[in-house]
Amino acid sequence: MTDIWIMRIGHRPQRDKRVTTHVALSSRALGAKGMYVDTADRILEENVRSVCDRFGGDFEISTGVNWKDRIKEFDGIVVHLTMYGQKMDEALPKIPDGRDMMIVVGAEKVPPEVYERADMNVSVGNQPHSEIAALSIFMYALTNGRSLYKDRNGRFTVIPNERGKTVAEVPK
Amino acid sequence: MTDIWIMRIGHRPQRDKRVTTHVALSSRALGAKGMYVDTADRILEENVRSVCDRFGGDFEISTGVNWKDRIKEFDGIVVHLTMYGQKMDEALPKIPDGRDMMIVVGAEKVPPEVYERADMNVSVGNQPHSEIAALSIFMYALTNGRSLYKDRNGRFTVIPNERGKTVAEVPK
Repeated sequence: MTDIWIMRIGHRPQRDKRVTTHVALSSRALGAKGMYVDTADRILEENVRSVCDRFGGDFEISTGVNWKDRIKEFDGIVVHLTMYGQKMDEALPKIPDGRDMMIVVGAEKVPPEVYERADMNVSVGNQPHSEIAALSIFMYALTNGRSLYKDRNGRFTVIPNERGKTVAEVPK
Repeated sequence: MTDIWIMRIGHRPQRDKRVTTHVALSSRALGAKGMYVDTADRILEENVRSVCDRFGGDFEISTGVNWKDRIKEFDGIVVHLTMYGQKMDEALPKIPDGRDMMIVVGAEKVPPEVYERADMNVSVGNQPHSEIAALSIFMYALTNGRSLYKDRNGRFTVIPNERGKTVAEVPK
């Protein structure tokens, strides 16, 4: 299995703190290896690492990352998610097997250069909605959701339950 | 095709304005009929209606709705999305055909009563992530994404494009 990385562009720490945290945690739940964020944001890093400490896995987060450099250096397919892109169902079969992927998601408008530098511009619907939703659906369709219940050897593990909450805790 | 409604619980207008807007717009893009929000929030209503005015469709939003009453009155299946619930893949085949659905999504913790009043508590992964992601993946899997590119007869229609932005505008 190849690695998936997220590149978050246009993050403004105050305004986007909750939305970018959702981007990080949902991509982690769906099996991404890690996320880069263009703007430095230590609080965001701490919040995401705190979840990883409790729930396990090896998701990485780095902030203050230059997106142009990161895309240029990246050895794999760069997919930019945008409501203007080609349809997801048509794009998925064109993705070559066996290569790592970087998925670029913007907060509001992204610079036109992103459309040029990405290998593919892909839409998850042609309506304005949510980069969290677009990223999650795209990753779900790409991976068949195989990471959603993966054992991450965390201190806490949630056991699916039809009616209440069941959490297994490993003593420290 | 039956109707899907969203019930958003625990909305705090200042803190959740962006996240609840994402919930509304992604559920609209995925074909929901409308959304109820427990806390009154006129600005949220205006923002969502403004998107509907421009991009079409008949998505409805009401805020200041009592969730207990709304669930009690609802003639259909009530599904509560929570990381503690039964696995989505096991839940989906149990959903009866031909009935409307209300999908309940909380902001942070929901009252224990929600777990009791819902017909099904369903998880989209057993990791903490995002109600926007959970709702989107659930609706995508439930509907096979059939509404993502539906023609909504809006003033603006985005035409999928591999490289740039193409928007068709109907003159007023």
